[in-house]
Amino acid sequence: MPVFQAPTRDTRFVVNELINLESYGHLPGFEVATRDLTDSVIEEAGRFVNEVIAPLNLSGDREGCTRHPDGSVTTPKGFKEAYARYVEAGWGTLAAPEALGGQGLPHVMGFMMEEYLASANQAFAMYPGLANGAISALVSKGSPDQQARYLPKMISGHWLGTMNLTEPHCGTDLGLIRTRAEPQGNGTYAISGTKIFISAGDHDLCENIIHLVLAKTPGAPESSKGISLFIVPKFLVNDNGTLGARNAVSVGSIEHKMGIHGNATCVMNYDGATGWLVGEENKGLAAMFIMMNAARLGVGIQGLAQAEASYQNAVAYALERRQGRALTGPAEPQQKADPIIVHPDVRRMLMDARTFIEGMRALCTWGALQVDLSHKAATEEERQAADDLISLLTPVIKGYGTDMGYKTATDMQQVWGGHGYIAENGMDQFVRDARIAMIYEGANGIQAMDLVGRKLAQNGGRAIQLLFKTIDEECATSESADPAVALVAERLAKASGHLKAATLWFMQNAMADRNALGAGAYAYMTLTGVVSLGLMWLKTAKVASASLAATTDDKQFYEAKLLCAKHWALRFAPNAGALRYEVEAGAETIMGLPAEAFAA
Amino acid sequence: MPVFQAPTRDTRFVVNELINLESYGHLPGFEVATRDLTDSVIEEAGRFVNEVIAPLNLSGDREGCTRHPDGSVTTPKGFKEAYARYVEAGWGTLAAPEALGGQGLPHVMGFMMEEYLASANQAFAMYPGLANGAISALVSKGSPDQQARYLPKMISGHWLGTMNLTEPHCGTDLGLIRTRAEPQGNGTYAISGTKIFISAGDHDLCENIIHLVLAKTPGAPESSKGISLFIVPKFLVNDNGTLGARNAVSVGSIEHKMGIHGNATCVMNYDGATGWLVGEENKGLAAMFIMMNAARLGVGIQGLAQAEASYQNAVAYALERRQGRALTGPAEPQQKADPIIVHPDVRRMLMDARTFIEGMRALCTWGALQVDLSHKAATEEERQAADDLISLLTPVIKGYGTDMGYKTATDMQQVWGGHGYIAENGMDQFVRDARIAMIYEGANGIQAMDLVGRKLAQNGGRAIQLLFKTIDEECATSESADPAVALVAERLAKASGHLKAATLWFMQNAMADRNALGAGAYAYMTLTGVVSLGLMWLKTAKVASASLAATTDDKQFYEAKLLCAKHWALRFAPNAGALRYEVEAGAETIMGLPAEAFAA
Repeated sequence: MPVFQAPTRDTRFVVNELINLESYGHLPGFEVATRDLTDSVIEEAGRFVNEVIAPLNLSGDREGCTRHPDGSVTTPKGFKEAYARYVEAGWGTLAAPEALGGQGLPHVMGFMMEEYLASANQAFAMYPGLANGAISALVSKGSPDQQARYLPKMISGHWLGTMNLTEPHCGTDLGLIRTRAEPQGNGTYAISGTKIFISAGDHDLCENIIHLVLAKTPGAPESSKGISLFIVPKFLVNDNGTLGARNAVSVGSIEHKMGIHGNATCVMNYDGATGWLVGEENKGLAAMFIMMNAARLGVGIQGLAQAEASYQNAVAYALERRQGRALTGPAEPQQKADPIIVHPDVRRMLMDARTFIEGMRALCTWGALQVDLSHKAATEEERQAADDLISLLTPVIKGYGTDMGYKTATDMQQVWGGHGYIAENGMDQFVRDARIAMIYEGANGIQAMDLVGRKLAQNGGRAIQLLFKTIDEECATSESADPAVALVAERLAKASGHLKAATLWFMQNAMADRNALGAGAYAYMTLTGVVSLGLMWLKTAKVASASLAATTDDKQFYEAKLLCAKHWALRFAPNAGALRYEVEAGAETIMGLPAEAFAA
Repeated sequence: MPVFQAPTRDTRFVVNELINLESYGHLPGFEVATRDLTDSVIEEAGRFVNEVIAPLNLSGDREGCTRHPDGSVTTPKGFKEAYARYVEAGWGTLAAPEALGGQGLPHVMGFMMEEYLASANQAFAMYPGLANGAISALVSKGSPDQQARYLPKMISGHWLGTMNLTEPHCGTDLGLIRTRAEPQGNGTYAISGTKIFISAGDHDLCENIIHLVLAKTPGAPESSKGISLFIVPKFLVNDNGTLGARNAVSVGSIEHKMGIHGNATCVMNYDGATGWLVGEENKGLAAMFIMMNAARLGVGIQGLAQAEASYQNAVAYALERRQGRALTGPAEPQQKADPIIVHPDVRRMLMDARTFIEGMRALCTWGALQVDLSHKAATEEERQAADDLISLLTPVIKGYGTDMGYKTATDMQQVWGGHGYIAENGMDQFVRDARIAMIYEGANGIQAMDLVGRKLAQNGGRAIQLLFKTIDEECATSESADPAVALVAERLAKASGHLKAATLWFMQNAMADRNALGAGAYAYMTLTGVVSLGLMWLKTAKVASASLAATTDDKQFYEAKLLCAKHWALRFAPNAGALRYEVEAGAETIMGLPAEAFAA
């Protein structure tokens, strides 16, 4: 069975040493997050997922979810008990507001838990993960009565939530939805229609499920300006909080998918189900984006999480499997063969993985800090800056993070050779599970368009300029005796220069040719990912270099950090130029063929 | 159900127009391959796979193979009948020698059929595909009696063959094998041991299976210098060609795999089975490499084949699925949304796929021509040159071809969005099937080491110098009024320059640091792939440009070729620089960490 141990040492590094969470203790909501507390939460969270959640990953994939003849859905063996323990321990409430029953810790800690859960068992993690999106929407847009009725139980995890957007003929283009919401004259609506691909659509983990459903009211404008958001509980909730009648929502079927078999991806049928409008009619898209943005960061973290889980198993195999000899002569002459970790090409895959994973963990944690600061920094200017950065980087974390998560899982499967292709060993599950993250919550091509079509231009390019300023300052303060720091700073400045050039190219060309923007979007997103990772590696190299100068504790840990930083500089950064040239290639060859030339 | 139509127009282009097979008609074995004949064989082959083989792909994946309580193995519904039609029509004999019952056509035609079969149904294609390796080994190394006894029936397809190399503890490092061969004093050996991952290990497609098995004789040297190759037929073959006793070889189990479910990947138990030595004792490795090299080209073609099949389905979806509007304004205002092929990012994926596929088809066909010329060219010098080129490019076609096949299948699945993740639509099967090709017949990291550790240095670098000369001459003869040709030539020269620099870097550094060779091997292989594809696109651009100047026939076809050639120049070629810098980065960060630093 695959191994998994939550990477608590590295999490403590990024939380305590890299972003130094404790240094924000003067801000509201950060006071409690002392290093002692975060250390113990991280270690305890690690123990919980190692012991309770990870052992259900492979078995959950094999068994999948079951829809019974009565329409009820059950999750794989062990999920229900594990979820009960998760709720009991309050793991879902780490970063939720205290006023709503949460623990009020920074989002940094919530992200940590999301990563650990998704690494241990992505299919399981999606049950509470999807609820987070629904919670965010209700926190922002729900009426006081709706918040009081649903949020405490949702935050505690006693109820879960779903996001119902997609229909058979519409995914990305939500203006096309056909689900209808007829006002009933009593403040409720009758919701009718079919939704597909609904993750965690139904299951046996908890007593109620709060569906958030996009639908159209009579006479609503065609287009995304005519969609509204509704609460449709599986069981109606009485004023005293007890559960009432079963609502007219049912599971038509569970989809057969490439992966995440442990999560029930449902076709949901709404047959005049009772729903309550969230916010105003025809303003559903804004609420949907609140759900989405929370979910997108969570999906980016899934990319990191699958990379980490698969990496651990590749390392274990590379240390144990013996095949061939080191190119420099036998490493263990007394054995018939050396462990395959002696082979440079195996190492290449492991080092690429490690450099992505640790850099991405830093980026997600730094991103989570921006989420916190966007709410809680001392000045409006600081809050604005944090919000700019995380808005800009959300599609990058989602798109680049999940692309690299899949690539990493594939590489780690490759380390296992033929044994990686055999289902029992679990390496193919990491690949199959990682694959969905590139698709759902906005396919990665949509993330790229969100980045270049919306985020880049907003407020006159304020966000990207702030990112450049952040990078420039980080590079400018890299005068170090340590040649590794100097190398990373030099290569980051160069890579960032390519990103600046690509940005300028868009400014000069994309107004005249909108297709040029679309044609370069994906390369631009990847380029931003490479550069953002580099920013994290420069910060990391500085911390590691300073630690090595100050103490002999954990020497190997910090030396490895410096080496990974150099690996970024030598093996990731060179791609920046190629990606820039792809942007500058424009749309000519991309859009040059008439559509019918493809049909031939 | 997924669609598939064999791409006969493009095959006819590469066979007739690009390599101009007919122009070799003065050489022995090429005479019969007139354009009329090849055109009709290509079209007929296309019809056969479209109608008989492709419809069994998705159902074969769903059903898989079955091992029955009596140990017998059956293939998915329809495979047996389809294989009978394949044998009856003689499709497996296209390129086999006439003396052995084959049709004696050039390998170019055999490769074409391998591609079509693998596109239509990779799991099915592997049954005759694996036999090709066994046939090659017997043609080269079998005794006259062995050849007479086994080859005619194997070539006709009435018997199939397998390659038994891997054991649980040894895959790449064949020196570790434990299967024993005890001489019986009567010219036969008793073979005992367990082999795993044996593709097409047993099945119901034909009356006998000729296993080629690597084993060690008593007292053989430890290491790969102590392995011998044996023929172990499922049923012993009497002198008169009839089948005799069932041999002591049985299927322990069928592996549960990520993909290629329609092929029976078996654990094979040899319990004192009767075997006959092929060639000499302890010389099994050489015979194994003959099998391997044939198989490696076939596996490279599988990468192309899965890319093609997935591409066709992505195109069909992109033309039909409506979602959103073109960035330049509604393309079909009378509809509620435009087909997604209007979106530049969808086009990007389709154009990347098309540029890889058509370039790779050209490369495989040109490679097949080199195989033919290595045997049949007029002079020893020409035969040598052809052999040098195909030996050099075999690991590139296998490694780069299957990496890109998997990437393309993944991208094509991405075009389908969430629907691509649903099993019934078949897009995930292309990804899962394409995945194995990166692993088997030598994992791609092994291909990279074969390229830089063996092929590059052989004969003082003669082969790579010939490739450079070929490219330089092609670029030098690109004076064209057509700016597309000039652009491709310019970018190919630049990319080839990076490959030259990387080659020089190896020459200067790899002797002193063997790990530097291993650390750069994969990037070098990919770089050679990018450049080789560019050589094909330059040749293609010239043919297309000349055709457009000469005739108005098929204008759209040739214009599309020129556009894809430019797409290579603008979007593939820029990676050459980054890959060169990866080579030049050496082994420092790759080998810098002590092994125990990974275990932490």
